[in-house]
Order: sequence, then C-alpha cells, then structure tokens
Amino acid sequence: MPVAGQVVQPGSWAPAEVGRIQLRGVAQVALSASPWTGLLFTIALFAGSWQIGVYGLLGAAASTAAAAVLGADRDGLTKGLEGYCGCLTGIAIVVRLDASWRTAVLAVIAGAVCSVLSAAAGRLLGRLGLPALTAPFCLVAGALASALPTSPAATAPPIPTVGFTALSAAELGRAFCNDIGQVFFLDTWYAGLLLLVGLLVASRTAALAAACGSVVAILTACAMGLPADRIAEGLYGYNAVLVAIALAATFLTLTPWTAGYATLAAVASVPFTAAWQAFAQPSGGSPFTWPFVVTTWLFLAAAPALERPGISFEKAK
Amino acid sequence: MPVAGQVVQPGSWAPAEVGRIQLRGVAQVALSASPWTGLLFTIALFAGSWQIGVYGLLGAAASTAAAAVLGADRDGLTKGLEGYCGCLTGIAIVVRLDASWRTAVLAVIAGAVCSVLSAAAGRLLGRLGLPALTAPFCLVAGALASALPTSPAATAPPIPTVGFTALSAAELGRAFCNDIGQVFFLDTWYAGLLLLVGLLVASRTAALAAACGSVVAILTACAMGLPADRIAEGLYGYNAVLVAIALAATFLTLTPWTAGYATLAAVASVPFTAAWQAFAQPSGGSPFTWPFVVTTWLFLAAAPALERPGISFEKAK
Amino acid sequence: MPVAGQVVQPGSWAPAEVGRIQLRGVAQVALSASPWTGLLFTIALFAGSWQIGVYGLLGAAASTAAAAVLGADRDGLTKGLEGYCGCLTGIAIVVRLDASWRTAVLAVIAGAVCSVLSAAAGRLLGRLGLPALTAPFCLVAGALASALPTSPAATAPPIPTVGFTALSAAELGRAFCNDIGQVFFLDTWYAGLLLLVGLLVASRTAALAAACGSVVAILTACAMGLPADRIAEGLYGYNAVLVAIALAATFLTLTPWTAGYATLAAVASVPFTAAWQAFAQPSGGSPFTWPFVVTTWLFLAAAPALERPGISFEKAK
Repeated sequence: MPVAGQVVQPGSWAPAEVGRIQLRGVAQVALSASPWTGLLFTIALFAGSWQIGVYGLLGAAASTAAAAVLGADRDGLTKGLEGYCGCLTGIAIVVRLDASWRTAVLAVIAGAVCSVLSAAAGRLLGRLGLPALTAPFCLVAGALASALPTSPAATAPPIPTVGFTALSAAELGRAFCNDIGQVFFLDTWYAGLLLLVGLLVASRTAALAAACGSVVAILTACAMGLPADRIAEGLYGYNAVLVAIALAATFLTLTPWTAGYATLAAVASVPFTAAWQAFAQPSGGSPFTWPFVVTTWLFLAAAPALERPGISFEKAK
Repeated sequence: MPVAGQVVQPGSWAPAEVGRIQLRGVAQVALSASPWTGLLFTIALFAGSWQIGVYGLLGAAASTAAAAVLGADRDGLTKGLEGYCGCLTGIAIVVRLDASWRTAVLAVIAGAVCSVLSAAAGRLLGRLGLPALTAPFCLVAGALASALPTSPAATAPPIPTVGFTALSAAELGRAFCNDIGQVFFLDTWYAGLLLLVGLLVASRTAALAAACGSVVAILTACAMGLPADRIAEGLYGYNAVLVAIALAATFLTLTPWTAGYATLAAVASVPFTAAWQAFAQPSGGSPFTWPFVVTTWLFLAAAPALERPGISFEKAK
Repeated sequence: MPVAGQVVQPGSWAPAEVGRIQLRGVAQVALSASPWTGLLFTIALFAGSWQIGVYGLLGAAASTAAAAVLGADRDGLTKGLEGYCGCLTGIAIVVRLDASWRTAVLAVIAGAVCSVLSAAAGRLLGRLGLPALTAPFCLVAGALASALPTSPAATAPPIPTVGFTALSAAELGRAFCNDIGQVFFLDTWYAGLLLLVGLLVASRTAALAAACGSVVAILTACAMGLPADRIAEGLYGYNAVLVAIALAATFLTLTPWTAGYATLAAVASVPFTAAWQAFAQPSGGSPFTWPFVVTTWLFLAAAPALERPGISFEKAK
C-alpha cells in the first residue's frame, strides 16, 4: 500500500481502486464523487449506445492516466476529478465521428490534452476561487468540432417565434428526461431517467436540483417561444440542469435564498444556451457546456459580494 | 433614518432618495453620479420615444431593486452604480422587440441578472484594479440579441472603400450628435445634444471629453474610408465618446499626456468597433459597448506601467 | 552615456544602440534577443518582398518609439520586447493592404497601439506568471482584419477529408520551410530556411525545437486529413513552431519530460489552428498567432501543477 508522502506510480494501484476512480470520473460529470453514481451513469451511457459507453470510459481512462503520468494532485485524481472532461470528450468524438481505431487514438490524445488543460484551469481559476467545471472539455471539444469533418450538414439556427411555445404531454416528458440526458449527449428518455436515479443514489439534493433545473429550463424556453422539437430534444435545458446541481447542491449551502439564486441562474442559462447555439451553428459548432460553465462562474463569483447577513454562501466542495 | 452599520431594507428609503438613485442610475451610463445629469438623460430618452424612456427607467429600477434584495454594497447602490446596466438593457430590449407586458417582464428579469453580473464583475475585475464599466449589460444584451427573434433582417456588414470618406456639413452635424446619442441607442440630433447638456451639468471636463471623442471618432472613421451614412448614424463613434469620458474625465488625471493617451484610445476604438460589427452582424448581433469596455480596460491596465516621472495616472473614482 | 536611475530620452541613444534594439525587436518574434538573429530575420523579410521588409522594420520602430515615449520599462525595451508585435503588425498590414503613405501611417498608429497593449498585457498576465507573447499583435491585427477592406475574396474554409493526407516530397519540403516562414507571413522555402539559420545563430536548441515543431505539425495535419496544398503553404504549422520554441527552448528547462510535454502542445496546436481558421474565415479573418498564444499560456499555466519530483519546470526567461 502506498505510504503517505511517497510518490505513487499508477501501476501500484489495485485494480479495484482503478475501477472506482474510473467510475468516479464518470460521476464527476454531474459533480458527484460516488462510484455507484458512476456505475449507473455508465449503464446509461451503454443504454445510449455501446460506442458512447466505450468511448466515455476510454476518454476518462486516458485523461486520468495522463494526469497520473504528468504528476497531478493525487487527491483530486482519486476523486475522479481528472476523468470527467476526458469522458465527455470521448463521447463528443464518437458522436461526431464514428467509432474506429483512428477516432480511438484521437480520443486518447484529446483526453491527455484535457488533463493538461485541467491543471492549467485549476491554477488560473484557483486564484479567483472558481472551480474548473467542464471548461477543459469545452475547449478541446470546441476545437475538434471546428477542425474535424462534420458528419451532419450544419443547419441554420432556428428562428424563435414571438409567443409562448405549447408542448404536448409527450414532448414535456421527453424534454424533462432529455434535459438531463443531453449532459452526456444522450437523447432517449430512459437514459435521462437512469442518470437521475444515479444522482439520487449519491444525493437527494442533487437529484432534486437536477429535476427542478430541467423544469425551470422548459418553462423558460417555452416563455421565450423557442421551437418545441428542440425543447423536447433537451437542447436548451442541459446547462440549466448542471447549473442547478452546481449552485443548489454543490458549491452553495442550500437555503431559500440560494434556491432562488440558483433558479435565477438556471433561467439565465437558457437564453445564453440559445444564443451560443445561434452563434456557433453557422460554423458547425455547438455550445457544449460553456453556458453552464460561464453562468456558474459568474453566479459563484457574485455570491460573496451579495452575501446577506445571517446567510452564508459557502463552498461545500 | 438609517443608522450607519444597520442593515437597510429598500422599503425604508424615502421616495425622494429612491428617485435620486433612479436618476443617478441613468446618469452612470456616462460615468456621472449627478441626479441632474440623470434627469436630462431621462428627458433625452423620452425625446427618443416614450418606450425608450419607460424601459430605460424600468430596467434601471429592476436592476437596482434586485441588487438591494441580493444585499449589494449600499454605497455603490446610492451612487447609481447598480442601475446603469439595467437601464441600457431595458432600452436594448425595447429597441429590438416591441413594448408589451412580455418584454417588460423580460426587462425586469434581465435587469436582475445584470445586478448579479455586476457583483461578479466587481469581484473578478476588482483584483485587477479595473472597473466593471458596461460589461454586465454587454453580456446580457449580447445573449438576448442572439437568442431572441430579430425584428430587422440581419444585413451584411458594409465593405469599407479605400480612400477618405467625405461628409457633408449636415452629415457632420448628425454624426457629432449621434455619436453621443447612440450611447443610449438614440439617433436624433436633439437627443444627442440633450445628453451633452446633461454631461455639462455634472462636469465641464466630461462634456468636453465627449465632444472631443466624437470629433476624433469622425476623423478616424473618415480616414478609414467607412461609409458616410453609417458614420452619420453614429455607429462608429459612441464607443470613442465613452472611452474619452472614461479615460480623460473619470479614471485618469487630465494632463496633456493623458489627453494624448485618451486620444490614442479613442482612435483605436473606431476600427475595433467596425471590426466587432463586421464580426457580430452575420449572426444578427451588435457590438453594444464592448469596444468601449475592452479598450478602456486595456488602456487603464497599461496606464501604471507607462507612468511618466512627474505625472501620476490616478483613478479619480 | 546614461547613468542608471536617470530618465533617458530616446534621443540620447547612440545610433548603433538604436539599430541593435531594432534588430532585437525583429528577433523577438521568435523569442530570441540576438541582434544577429534579427539581422538574418530582416534579410528573410526582404527576401519575401521589399514591402514586407520595410513595413516590418517600420512597425517595430513605431512600436519601440511609442513605448519609449510612453515611458515603458527600459530593460525590456533594449531587449527588443517592445518591437516584435509592431513588426508583425506592420507586415500584416502590408500583406493585406498595399504599400502606400496611408498604410504607412496606419502601421505607425497600429504599432503605437501595440505598445499600449503590451503594457496592459504585461500587467494583467504578469499576475498569473504568464508572458504576453504575441497577444497584442493578434488583438490589433484581428481588429484591423475585420475592419479593413479585404483584398482577396474571403474563401470558404476547407472541409477536411476522413483519412491520412499523403504529401509528395516537394510538398513535404515546402511544408517544412513554410511552417517556419509563415510566422512572418512568408511563403517561400528560402525565407523559411533563412529564418531557421537565424534561429541557429542564437541558439541550437531553438532551431532544433522549430524544426521538430514543424515536423510534428506536418504529421498531425496529415493524420487529421487536412488538405495537402494548405499543409504545404504552412498554414497549420506556424503555431506549432512557435509553441515548440516557447516551451522547449525558452520557458521550460529542456528534459525528456518537457520535450514530450512540448510535443503534446505542438500536436494540440494544429487542430486548434484549423478550428480557428474555420471560425475566422467566414468573416474574412485569420487566427494569426492566437493558437500559439493560447496553447502556450495553457501549457505554461499547467506546468507547475504537473511538476514531477526531481524535474523542475523553470522559466528560463
């Protein structure tokens, strides 16, 4: 067993520990460190398709291994903090290109770059007291999305209509589940529900925050008159789900005040997501989770300045 | 009356004080804290159209109220520093969409988001010794501009011609006034003049800086060969006006050196504005006052490093 | 002779010293402070065309003179650190527009703005322990590229094909030289070789890093299936060359580990460059050396966090 203070090589880790770190890496996409959550998330990925599952695990492993080789902080490593960006990057690559040896090599290199960017983001943002969130993934995936051949034709961004969007019950249900599923690029209702159950295993607060974030996002998107089919695909809500988990269940202590604050942030993330899509689509890009990252940074940075007497905004993590 | 150190609820303020804060919020768009300036600015807004006036006041009120509820710094609040971004956001919304209950609700929510972003900007930029300026407004208005339906068709950016642009005397007069008016999205000569008088009430230096900034911008735009009709609309000069007020009359002590430095900044803001318009227009966007914000940040950040012996660059505010 | 501590006016410098600073300004484009390197670089510029040579020297002189007038740090000034951004800006202007009195005035003003931005970047980035690199040039050139009339028609970005790109021996040779030449917007093989010899004069490590960076970039671009003619023009590799010089020969101590780290950075810069081109081209823009700047910042910021026991990441400069 490793002695504290000693330099530990990845090879000295027990297989069970490696598996747990791997699952935690998947769970950290939704800011959870529970391996059980990671296990349910992994099942949800394979429920999407075996390619998504395999590339998600491959990306997480590549990024974690690169971080270990480059000598990253061991504590963050065992919590899975070096895996989630690689996991999302691997999925983003296989969704866009198809599974092949060539894309597998790309996923491994991209995962390694993620671990360098995570270290950079940790240093640069640490001074501001902000977490890196999924920014390394967004940078790598954004660069690849613009540089690589696009499989689908880049479509024109939808023009929202003036007036409230009405959703059928089926669309509403799909939107609720897909808002959660799209965090992992998944668009089937059962994958979204599996992810929600995975969150519930780790923390009831996180699951409740995700569900509320999804509802808030649907209401906001409907009020903005955004197209019903895209709302049902979950394209406007996955950032709100992550914002809600981050602000209400992870970085701030949950009180009625912070719940209202997180709701405002989730509302704000929806036009931000729509704007980023309109901006990125002409060049075949995607906002990925940038709207989540930027909204959370801004609302976290504002939190101490807006502190109320008797209510403390504290970072739970 | 509130005792120092006690927590003050917005409800405990006298109506006269609330009105003064409201007017200061409008005045702070041009970096002034005088309620008389705010009164003249408000008249100029109503001279543009009653909708612009109402939404400007509504946005300023929403943003100030949200900041008060969220517990923002009372000193900045009474100076109107929580109002100006909401004021501009309200105007940007009513200019793009039309006045209705729905856009009024949007203006109130957007104003509230502005106050959160102002707090975040204050904290993040405060470490660098830089003011937030209108960055929160630019972020909110930029996101809404991309996300919301565009009323006018997005036009192609104009292609500048090689050669000096010649303006008629009428165009010159309109350009001079509109450079100031466009700070508030106004494009009538009398609105611009009213704003200039409003500045004069608070500070002769600020009014002179605004006038000089407008002249410098017109000369630069003509030298660049930009189209005459857009110069006359004030589309290239409103950032230069704000840059001149910020550098020559607000944040640096006015000397011949700083006047030259502010002139260079005002000149630089014109191609920057034209570039940002060319960049943002294909997706129906607008640079808003980003060129002013970024130019002022860079020239303020450079000021201490470029300090000359015997001449101090000091922040007047 | 100037006494230490005394304020020195540019006029008091000997012509030989002024010439040496001027050449160092050109050399600093490739992070070298040797006047001999600058001399060979200048010859390479004139080998490209006399306009490129004249505007490069004009821009470097304007930027250095403006920095001297504005009172910049004398130590950086004599090392040429105030000249390289102006040099690149002057070349960027004459490549896009043609040589005339009007563009010469533009190059002088743009060079002066560069010196202000360098001071700002030094202050803002200095707190993060990061160098300014060519960021001031990228900002000024990017603004001008969007604002000014485009001489060539903006072409659609190339769509990469899936599969390895095969290069002929001639294309390979051109790609190797142009990857170095394109740092200065040069696209003839002898100019690239002259630059390489210039680097060799100052430091064998830097020349080796540049050559390896070029090779790595060609391999990466071919593996990505990018079009052969653009690879041969050096459009994907000039950032990798600069990244390799910066990481392997300038800011980190060269060890097998840092060599691998620099290789990963050079690989990452190629899709980043392709992405930035795809993004900027619709509006007639260019990535300039932004991909070099951002990649180097991120990998430098990550370096201390990834420090291995027994291997120190130290800044050589």
